[in-house]
Amino acid sequence: MSQEDNNVEVAGGDDDIVDPWNVQSKSETGIDYDKLINKFGCQRISDELIARIERVIGKKAHALLKRGVFFSHRDLEFILDRKEKGQPFYLYTGRGPSSESMHLGHLIPFIFTKNDLTIEKSMELAKENAKDIIACGFDINKTFIFSNFRYIGQSPEFYQNIQLVAKNVTFNQAKGCFGFKEGDSIGKIHFPSIEAAPSFSGSFPFIFNGKKDIPCLIPCAIDQDPFFRMTRDVAPRVGLHKPALIHSVFFPALQGAQSKMSASDETSAIFLTDTQEQIKDKINKYAFSGGRATAMEQREFGANCEIDVSYQYLKFFYHDEEKLEVMRQDYTSGKMLTGELKAVLIKELQEMVADIQKRRAVVDDALVEQFMTPRPLQYSF
Amino acid sequence: MSQEDNNVEVAGGDDDIVDPWNVQSKSETGIDYDKLINKFGCQRISDELIARIERVIGKKAHALLKRGVFFSHRDLEFILDRKEKGQPFYLYTGRGPSSESMHLGHLIPFIFTKNDLTIEKSMELAKENAKDIIACGFDINKTFIFSNFRYIGQSPEFYQNIQLVAKNVTFNQAKGCFGFKEGDSIGKIHFPSIEAAPSFSGSFPFIFNGKKDIPCLIPCAIDQDPFFRMTRDVAPRVGLHKPALIHSVFFPALQGAQSKMSASDETSAIFLTDTQEQIKDKINKYAFSGGRATAMEQREFGANCEIDVSYQYLKFFYHDEEKLEVMRQDYTSGKMLTGELKAVLIKELQEMVADIQKRRAVVDDALVEQFMTPRPLQYSF
Repeated sequence: MSQEDNNVEVAGGDDDIVDPWNVQSKSETGIDYDKLINKFGCQRISDELIARIERVIGKKAHALLKRGVFFSHRDLEFILDRKEKGQPFYLYTGRGPSSESMHLGHLIPFIFTKNDLTIEKSMELAKENAKDIIACGFDINKTFIFSNFRYIGQSPEFYQNIQLVAKNVTFNQAKGCFGFKEGDSIGKIHFPSIEAAPSFSGSFPFIFNGKKDIPCLIPCAIDQDPFFRMTRDVAPRVGLHKPALIHSVFFPALQGAQSKMSASDETSAIFLTDTQEQIKDKINKYAFSGGRATAMEQREFGANCEIDVSYQYLKFFYHDEEKLEVMRQDYTSGKMLTGELKAVLIKELQEMVADIQKRRAVVDDALVEQFMTPRPLQYSF
Repeated sequence: MSQEDNNVEVAGGDDDIVDPWNVQSKSETGIDYDKLINKFGCQRISDELIARIERVIGKKAHALLKRGVFFSHRDLEFILDRKEKGQPFYLYTGRGPSSESMHLGHLIPFIFTKNDLTIEKSMELAKENAKDIIACGFDINKTFIFSNFRYIGQSPEFYQNIQLVAKNVTFNQAKGCFGFKEGDSIGKIHFPSIEAAPSFSGSFPFIFNGKKDIPCLIPCAIDQDPFFRMTRDVAPRVGLHKPALIHSVFFPALQGAQSKMSASDETSAIFLTDTQEQIKDKINKYAFSGGRATAMEQREFGANCEIDVSYQYLKFFYHDEEKLEVMRQDYTSGKMLTGELKAVLIKELQEMVADIQKRRAVVDDALVEQFMTPRPLQYSF
């Protein structure tokens, strides 16, 4: 459908399957991201680009960029150009992973949404999810949390943007992007216009202190790219900014990249509600190891970090750049054992989850209401 | 898609084309309604049914029923059963023709909506249209007027019903009902769920004084039937009442059943804004005559009422049942001339339009707001 982007056949042959509803790899190292970038037609985040980001923001780039968790983008240079000139932009992200908060928790409701929920259940979950997000430490003056269901009833502008997109995307184009089948519901077929619409929130002024035409940067896992590829195609046709994108890799299940996290399988993931003891037990019992079968073999041959879930989790969450690199080398060479690496991860996750639980305990319904009320945000553009 | 209803191929061969976006006949007498009833799988409104209606309501049936303007239905017996038992139901109709008000005006915005309007223009027109409807004399205590765009922002329940329908209709089913093509926008493909949703307003209690599960009766022109055929199919799957339907024939353009009313063609229709002089001129100049070329021929052979637009208009609007029948006989026999029949129509329309214009002049924005605010209606169920 697009001139700039490749059309994507979402499944086929020996390729990984990556679309907003399925992520599936046949390789134990997980998705081949280089192949995916090529297929999707987006850009690798290069060392040069990270260096430019650091020049523009005047400090070190976010750890998730340096570690390659966010690895790909669309139009990030355009956002950097604006940042350099002091021009505003805004971030939009969903229940999937976001660059400013943790993956561990965000992935759980994301998995949830793939299920066949009732509307009531969805709205309940949305509220619980909002509490998790707030517990991550978002600034209420700069953050508007919305659920699609509620926001539509709160802002006619939002629904107008949905219909603007829906009117300008044909079934054929949506099919090309998402691989829709004729047996899919017309709700599912229409959904991309709902996911697309907040990319154009910068077109109506009430949130941004009367400012209009503010472009959007979207951090998301790469499986969400098709929505925004479509959005970017529509944008110029309706006279609006294309959203820029920054893509993350996927967060693996405890059992490894080929396995799936599932809310119905307690052992597949660390939940934000897990106790300190549960975190320890799950990592020790279930986190797939890239190390050797015995300590002796590990000392001699070393581990494969690419498939080691504990190392992958540390890449997402560990607080210290240099120590992480030392651990990678020591674990790869065999100087470090799986049990030792797991101990580091357990401590890190226990602290992080305890912090979130502490903050979440004081998030009440009134605060959720405040976050979820459309209002001017406190940006000084 | 349906077990009870026939699948409809909306175009083909020498058949009339009737779907929500096209009404086209190759015959000068217009659409073959018997064929259409057969094709759509709905029921003819029989003399027996009209007699039952009169027994149930304890008075004469509405003139539009007796004259065959409303000629077909689905489940009207079910509504009559409820009426007999003193159980409630409600009416839902759109900008198309409705049994309780006039076609002349209602058809104009209906034609409008087929054009490619901007969202702003649509919302403006919705307001103007609401003023026309109010000017027809609807009771504010029993009538809620809504525009889809606004209502979605006013009531989460409405949007929830839209998504409930959208989730339960596949593209294939919608295609079977509406003849969608792959080049149609995902907005158009999703639209049937928006038109369907108010059929289920009886499922949430805020409008009906806390009462739930109130079934709906929909008066509409028969081209809107596919929307509600789909709606009726979805209803039992989501545990809600099927809406009952009562179908009207089409209101012809001044030039006849094969021609189209168009807002861009002044001469194709009588507008509610027309002056007394314009009404007279338009009927005299443009109303297609089923009479003979000369008065002498007319006296000898008589007119064909089936294709005579003035007679058709009288059938929609004339106030007196017996006099209408006398005119039909006299015009058919040749006793009455086209000019005489047109004079009767002109007087009738001039009075009716003057009345509406007088009432419309005092409809202000505040009254429109009142009609368009979701609120409990004053029904004593």
